[in-house]
Amino acid sequence: MAVDVHIFEVALRDGLQNEPVSLSTAGKLAVARALDAAGVADLEVTSFVRPDRVPQLADADAVVEGTQRLTARSWVLVPNAVGMEKAVAAGARRVCTVVSASETHNLKNINRSVRDSLAELRKVIGLAVDEGIAVRAYVSTVFGCPYEGRVPVERTLDLACRLLDLGAQRIVLGDTIGTGTPDQVAEVIAELGEVGIGPERLALHAHDTFGTALVNVYAAWRAGVTHFDASLGGIGGCPYAPGASGNLATEDLVHLFEGMGVSTGVSLDGLLEAGRLLGDLLGRPLPGRVHRALIGCGCVAPRRASIGG
Amino acid sequence: MAVDVHIFEVALRDGLQNEPVSLSTAGKLAVARALDAAGVADLEVTSFVRPDRVPQLADADAVVEGTQRLTARSWVLVPNAVGMEKAVAAGARRVCTVVSASETHNLKNINRSVRDSLAELRKVIGLAVDEGIAVRAYVSTVFGCPYEGRVPVERTLDLACRLLDLGAQRIVLGDTIGTGTPDQVAEVIAELGEVGIGPERLALHAHDTFGTALVNVYAAWRAGVTHFDASLGGIGGCPYAPGASGNLATEDLVHLFEGMGVSTGVSLDGLLEAGRLLGDLLGRPLPGRVHRALIGCGCVAPRRASIGG
Repeated sequence: MAVDVHIFEVALRDGLQNEPVSLSTAGKLAVARALDAAGVADLEVTSFVRPDRVPQLADADAVVEGTQRLTARSWVLVPNAVGMEKAVAAGARRVCTVVSASETHNLKNINRSVRDSLAELRKVIGLAVDEGIAVRAYVSTVFGCPYEGRVPVERTLDLACRLLDLGAQRIVLGDTIGTGTPDQVAEVIAELGEVGIGPERLALHAHDTFGTALVNVYAAWRAGVTHFDASLGGIGGCPYAPGASGNLATEDLVHLFEGMGVSTGVSLDGLLEAGRLLGDLLGRPLPGRVHRALIGCGCVAPRRASIGG
Repeated sequence: MAVDVHIFEVALRDGLQNEPVSLSTAGKLAVARALDAAGVADLEVTSFVRPDRVPQLADADAVVEGTQRLTARSWVLVPNAVGMEKAVAAGARRVCTVVSASETHNLKNINRSVRDSLAELRKVIGLAVDEGIAVRAYVSTVFGCPYEGRVPVERTLDLACRLLDLGAQRIVLGDTIGTGTPDQVAEVIAELGEVGIGPERLALHAHDTFGTALVNVYAAWRAGVTHFDASLGGIGGCPYAPGASGNLATEDLVHLFEGMGVSTGVSLDGLLEAGRLLGDLLGRPLPGRVHRALIGCGCVAPRRASIGG
């Protein structure tokens, strides 16, 4: 089915890795099937990281195998060449890589300088190219770094050019700490265009920490970007505080675009079902707005009328 | 101080009227002073409704008196001519009126047909004009009605023209159930322009029920609107479910615009202080995104770094 906007669902990886509760493999696969049934075409399902560092994703092999029967394409995050080899051995055919636009964040997150990360990514993406594996390359902290503040756009331009040259198919602009603004999003996309990287090569990974995810998505969409990351129920994305949000909720994204008559190919009812399952498995209310509004009371009608506004 | 964007704070009226807990007059005035200290220039402080219908606002006289010493301008909602007379007697100098763009919502909300509401508003606004009292006229359900669905834009055009003709200074477009989309917001503003009502006569009252308040504000701002309603911590606005959101949080609005370099004249730190006080008084966490992110952990630094995205 042709869609206007493509949704890349990250709950099973980016979401779950930040959860205190580890889901069973069966639970993850049940959520994956619910997302698949809702019409989500791309799922980031796990990460090949060290199980002692991220125990929530220690079952990566089993998750990759279990999601290969879905209609949805499954993707895995690989932090380095070792992870890439494990992913290939597990049968993964689509990978995500990551590097930060800011030096300090890369050091804290990947434990490498950006230069060393690029050297590692040359190996990772080289292997992917040899194997015919698709690569989606995250660039983190494009719009702000928790240690360095605003990040010069030149860092992003440089990384994006190099990653595409190495063989990545798409650059994912990450608003890692959620401080991006719509004018900044439009500016970065315009600057990328000036170095020959059009919006068709981009995706936006917006964080909703400060409630700006949808306005940043809207600004990117107006600038021609049609690929967006989101997480079921808004889980993950490293929220600052309990009850706060991190990732943009997939339900909120689909609700916005479908409301505008822009097709996502995803059923909101199907997502609500998947979100209900995920909330039950995690045993906590999920932060997404649409989830809270519609799952909270099980109805679409407003609770009551009130005078004013 | 000249500002680019004007914030109209509704927590004390639209927020509190939906709260199960009634705040004391002293508590309301403490919140009003905190908002005033944060630099908010306009506060909707109460409503002259029947105390048996809205007991939370039964102290309207005392609140009006107590807020007259603030730097901020205080506004009161008046549902009808009786309320208007009470407001005038209490010393109010700025009032808000309300009517719905959809017939069914007006009947359920005001217990009158739209035609009867307009007849009543002729009296209310006439009295205001005689007394030199400023009038801000809400038009509710502009972008959708819980009973009728989409509302024809002609309803809004007709009401806006009549209310301005009667003497209202500003039309407040209410996205009462939060189903508005940015393209729809832009369209309504454009259509109002075509009948001679420019963006300088408008304000937007966006609801965040489905997370779209900021994107709708952004669309309105791009279309020239510079007056926006918001509620401290995101309280009120008739959220569908407990924990869900209704009104746009003032903190989220200020955070967005200040991040874009657009001046609001409001201190985010001051708002966070006011929000902390309000949360303490209500005894519950408030739904606003910025509030949750920054009050939840008392810090600005992210909880921890995480691999990816």
